[in-house]
Amino acid sequence: MNYLRIAFLPAVLIAPALADEGLWLFNQPPRTILRERHHFEASGPWLEHLQKASVRFGSGGGSGSFVSEDGLLISNHHVGADAIQKLSTPERNYVRDGFHARTLGGELRCMDLELNVLESIEDVTARVNAAVPGGADPAAAFAARRQVIAGIEKESLDRTGLRSDVVTLWQGGAYHLYRYKQFTDVRLVFAPEQQIAFFGGDPDNFEFPRHDLDICLFRVYENGRPATVPHFLRFASAGPREGELVFVSGHPGRTSRLLTLAELGHLRDQALPFRLQTLKRLEVLLGNWSARDEENARRARRAFHGAQNGRKALEGRLEGLLGPELLAAKHRAETDLRAALAGRPDRAEALAAYDRIAAATKRLAAQAVRHSLWEGALAFRCESFNLARTLLRAGDERPKPNGERLREFSDAGRKTLELRLFSAKPIHTDLEILTLADSLTFLAGQLGVEDPLVRRVLAGQSPRRRAAALIASTNVRDVPFRKALYRGGAGAVSAAGDPMIELARLVDSEARGLRAVAEEQQEILHQAHAVLARVRNAVLGTEGYPDATSTLRLSFGVVRGYEEHGRPVPAFTTLGTLFERARAMKHRSPYDLPDAWVKRQTRLRPDTPLNFVSTCDIIGGNSGSPVVNRAGEFVGVIFDGNLQSLPWDYVFEDRQGRATAVHAAAILETLDRIYRARDLVRELEHGRRPR
Amino acid sequence: MNYLRIAFLPAVLIAPALADEGLWLFNQPPRTILRERHHFEASGPWLEHLQKASVRFGSGGGSGSFVSEDGLLISNHHVGADAIQKLSTPERNYVRDGFHARTLGGELRCMDLELNVLESIEDVTARVNAAVPGGADPAAAFAARRQVIAGIEKESLDRTGLRSDVVTLWQGGAYHLYRYKQFTDVRLVFAPEQQIAFFGGDPDNFEFPRHDLDICLFRVYENGRPATVPHFLRFASAGPREGELVFVSGHPGRTSRLLTLAELGHLRDQALPFRLQTLKRLEVLLGNWSARDEENARRARRAFHGAQNGRKALEGRLEGLLGPELLAAKHRAETDLRAALAGRPDRAEALAAYDRIAAATKRLAAQAVRHSLWEGALAFRCESFNLARTLLRAGDERPKPNGERLREFSDAGRKTLELRLFSAKPIHTDLEILTLADSLTFLAGQLGVEDPLVRRVLAGQSPRRRAAALIASTNVRDVPFRKALYRGGAGAVSAAGDPMIELARLVDSEARGLRAVAEEQQEILHQAHAVLARVRNAVLGTEGYPDATSTLRLSFGVVRGYEEHGRPVPAFTTLGTLFERARAMKHRSPYDLPDAWVKRQTRLRPDTPLNFVSTCDIIGGNSGSPVVNRAGEFVGVIFDGNLQSLPWDYVFEDRQGRATAVHAAAILETLDRIYRARDLVRELEHGRRPR
Repeated sequence: MNYLRIAFLPAVLIAPALADEGLWLFNQPPRTILRERHHFEASGPWLEHLQKASVRFGSGGGSGSFVSEDGLLISNHHVGADAIQKLSTPERNYVRDGFHARTLGGELRCMDLELNVLESIEDVTARVNAAVPGGADPAAAFAARRQVIAGIEKESLDRTGLRSDVVTLWQGGAYHLYRYKQFTDVRLVFAPEQQIAFFGGDPDNFEFPRHDLDICLFRVYENGRPATVPHFLRFASAGPREGELVFVSGHPGRTSRLLTLAELGHLRDQALPFRLQTLKRLEVLLGNWSARDEENARRARRAFHGAQNGRKALEGRLEGLLGPELLAAKHRAETDLRAALAGRPDRAEALAAYDRIAAATKRLAAQAVRHSLWEGALAFRCESFNLARTLLRAGDERPKPNGERLREFSDAGRKTLELRLFSAKPIHTDLEILTLADSLTFLAGQLGVEDPLVRRVLAGQSPRRRAAALIASTNVRDVPFRKALYRGGAGAVSAAGDPMIELARLVDSEARGLRAVAEEQQEILHQAHAVLARVRNAVLGTEGYPDATSTLRLSFGVVRGYEEHGRPVPAFTTLGTLFERARAMKHRSPYDLPDAWVKRQTRLRPDTPLNFVSTCDIIGGNSGSPVVNRAGEFVGVIFDGNLQSLPWDYVFEDRQGRATAVHAAAILETLDRIYRARDLVRELEHGRRPR
Repeated sequence: MNYLRIAFLPAVLIAPALADEGLWLFNQPPRTILRERHHFEASGPWLEHLQKASVRFGSGGGSGSFVSEDGLLISNHHVGADAIQKLSTPERNYVRDGFHARTLGGELRCMDLELNVLESIEDVTARVNAAVPGGADPAAAFAARRQVIAGIEKESLDRTGLRSDVVTLWQGGAYHLYRYKQFTDVRLVFAPEQQIAFFGGDPDNFEFPRHDLDICLFRVYENGRPATVPHFLRFASAGPREGELVFVSGHPGRTSRLLTLAELGHLRDQALPFRLQTLKRLEVLLGNWSARDEENARRARRAFHGAQNGRKALEGRLEGLLGPELLAAKHRAETDLRAALAGRPDRAEALAAYDRIAAATKRLAAQAVRHSLWEGALAFRCESFNLARTLLRAGDERPKPNGERLREFSDAGRKTLELRLFSAKPIHTDLEILTLADSLTFLAGQLGVEDPLVRRVLAGQSPRRRAAALIASTNVRDVPFRKALYRGGAGAVSAAGDPMIELARLVDSEARGLRAVAEEQQEILHQAHAVLARVRNAVLGTEGYPDATSTLRLSFGVVRGYEEHGRPVPAFTTLGTLFERARAMKHRSPYDLPDAWVKRQTRLRPDTPLNFVSTCDIIGGNSGSPVVNRAGEFVGVIFDGNLQSLPWDYVFEDRQGRATAVHAAAILETLDRIYRARDLVRELEHGRRPR
């Protein structure tokens, strides 16, 4: 299939007129655009090399790339922080203090980190759609689609041994089968101190100029030894120049550029304000708990930063939606398409599709809060509930035929599920009680204590007491207990009578009911968006890319500064400007530098580039993506976008919007001169471990 | 009239059974209880002396007391902080660094601080109720009541020259006329550094043990000279002992102990969750803005701390309401009262009153969000809007007869209104834009951008741009402009065409409409609560006190520690335990001490009491209230309650709930040895300035 670029983009939003937009599929790369605009030939081998050197964290929690044939990979500190946190204790606080394994033996195995490398893509659209009977009601259509997808995935897994995911593209316009090589023995090699990885903290987050060494290094192992990987990126230590063409290969999580006016209106007026409310609530809760005690702060750090980061990102997106330009442009685009359809036979079908999308959006909006609370488990924010629900549902789902299960329990996803479920990661009861009590309080405030299900959930206790009692009495934090219940199935789960699992059971009927409605409406949306994609393509046809789906995409752009408030913002910051900023901010947290940096400052060349911006199209999930040059060499690693890039969720523009990366030169120089990591520097320079 | 104590309090909530509960009226003091339980005779002169030595900040923003015949008064740093902030600049940051006038000439005149001293109370219930025609509909009844109240106030003002406020007590059961001597020339004498006034910051707020020197000293002037005040409290430098009977005289703002089950359910399920949402939103906004820059932090400090303090207080109140005991007890009390009414002629009237309260609560709840946004101006959070609306409404209201105006424009309140409206306090445009943009965004998220009035408010711009444009173009921050418009009346206001005033005009019809509905429902509530008060009194009759109304009240209790998690919490902290806590928290902010304290630590006696708790009944607004002994001497100043006291809004219990005060001994010792304020120490010791 061949889909158009976002038709609604008005020229005013695109400056220069030919924006380097796009989150391109590796099997449908923008060859023509690259050739005509940048005189670059994206050859098959060039693409395959970049694809197979790229790494996805888990099912979509960030990106990375191999940088040595010995399985060494680089990503962001904030992408690796989850794994680093799980390896940390109050005494060995690797998130705060950093980590460096000076020998292979010192590399630390992560507890539940799964990495995926994309091996192949196959278009299975025809097979998926053929399995859905014409005229089936949405529930039946959803069930049929789920069944055929689970079957395709299982068949591929059995045949190839590779992780096999059918991905829904174009909001339902196409279905591609992605096969991944999975790595589950991943070891931590190097991480800097969080202070320098996240220098400037929340205030500087999404801002530019920026000064962060937001990197960390892992190594994949097979059979207890470093894996030999056939594709890795060679370090180009000079990095990119101003104006140079660069590429980003990574896993953008989700964009909403093809949504209709009705869907964006719902995001603007309801969905984003609600999510922001919950994020700000969490930020206040964790921020104040962290301020009470250093160990609290260590335990809550990841969740706290996640809440801050999400809040700032969503505020930027909401601001984009609240500006008059974005929705007005979408309105014009829809009007134009409707006009262009005049007299065509598929006009009625397209108009009906718009109406069905609006109706389904309204239906979803009507149950959105309850869905978030019960099925989204916002009412039960804690690891213990998540584990309890997984055990409960695993017991109920696994005996069913593969194609009839909830998606997360399909055979193809089993390895991933079990890795997470049996993780020995630390779970802190005080933090569990804190977040569960707060989310139960939120539940009461949203639905009222008189709601019959709320009343049963609280069981006559205050949220705080109920949370404390649940966390104290559940056994789900015990890994052998989880293994026994998972293996024992529904009978064992029932027999255990675990209070948290019984809470999950209490709300399961309500939660599943809300999910079923959501899935039906999603099916309606998929079918309607497939119609719109088809008619747009027929009317305006040009090559394009689907919205992001946590799958591998190729972006391209140039290294370029921009103007803000009438002043130029240069494309690069340097190690020198880092120290200047720390001084200007009086070294107050979060502008304080690690001791090693203060002590060894004079060894650094102040003009070494530290961070840089480019016009490459990215979104959340691209964190850790390699930035490569025409030769396919590593010149940097994406870790952020600026504030003006936040509305890229809905529309790309590169007048001011920029992707932010750590520069290759700063990585080599600081590994060498601050961290004395000579072996790592040599491995990066030569693409293999020193022997 | 004679009202009962809170009938619904079950014995289980009161331990010991005879709790020292009550926010007693000075004209209906608990003489019998004090005599029988504490063998204390509250004589008329004793009460009059305490009453007239007590001071109210503004119309209810805190409490204080005279401590020298030369007009010196003591309150909390956090009560005085608003005035101190207005006197501060980036170069002279008195909030952060403290202030000490070593001579009279150095005392700094506050910009818009009004202090009130209660001179007399008169029961005007009969006159108010006689003016309301029997059978009048709520709107007419409200108008009649407003008119008679305004008339009584005006008449009293004209006759006595004293500020005259008719106060609604017992939720409508009684109306008393309070007359105050007003002081508007108030000068700052002393304030410690915020670090020590608010040591432990938000984490320690509402906690105990506590270690704050939360005091500041002002002096009232008349005719350019220190006022001579006939009543002031003598300092008892030894302070109170464990178990000693003490009294608190202050201005508790508002309690809700007489509300019905329906009203408390609304608070629990809607009102408090909504207010908490807005407070957390503000806390995130101001906290992050403050983290960017020291000057930002200085500008936002007061609002930021207010948001944090409000959030923590409301969370404690909500937790009380979400516990099963409180509402169950209220339920039992209502059931008991209904049962006790069986066979009585007033039974039907009482049951109808409950129904009317429930119906009015529902009606208020239905418009609560819109009321908060439009009439409560939550959609326009900035000083400029408040000033603009005051100018607009002053123009419209002042030509009306006194009794028909919105209450805040009555003749009796004119002096207070003008003091505020013409204040030269600094208003920071960056902070104005920040909070206005955020609140416009909140508005859009609450009502949706498609709401016609929201659309007109945003005028086709994003909230941020709209806010920036409004703040940049309005002239209301200019005092002469405000004076000209106020004096010029509605014509001058219209002619000015000021964008912010025109925004206030745009929403004024909607806002006034919502207010009118709220006032009608409030009238229904007043009438119904008057019925309930009457029948409860007839059935269960005992002496009691009305809910708090920002008017002077007397509390009593004993200095006593409590038990928490099975461990005793002693009643006192000391200067020694302060330094221990700072060390235990590694002197990290907010546990860092001012330089002078670090330097002069050795001069202090470590066993000097710093803070102490008592069972005195208090609530927000009591901050700054003097704690006095049987002799009526000053032994401390209230500045907080512990977490367990937060539900006192709804029900008093003193098993763990405590009021927290700064001890007189610590005040004298630190003024002497840290601040070298010998003259102040002598003035406090002798009750007059050294001559």
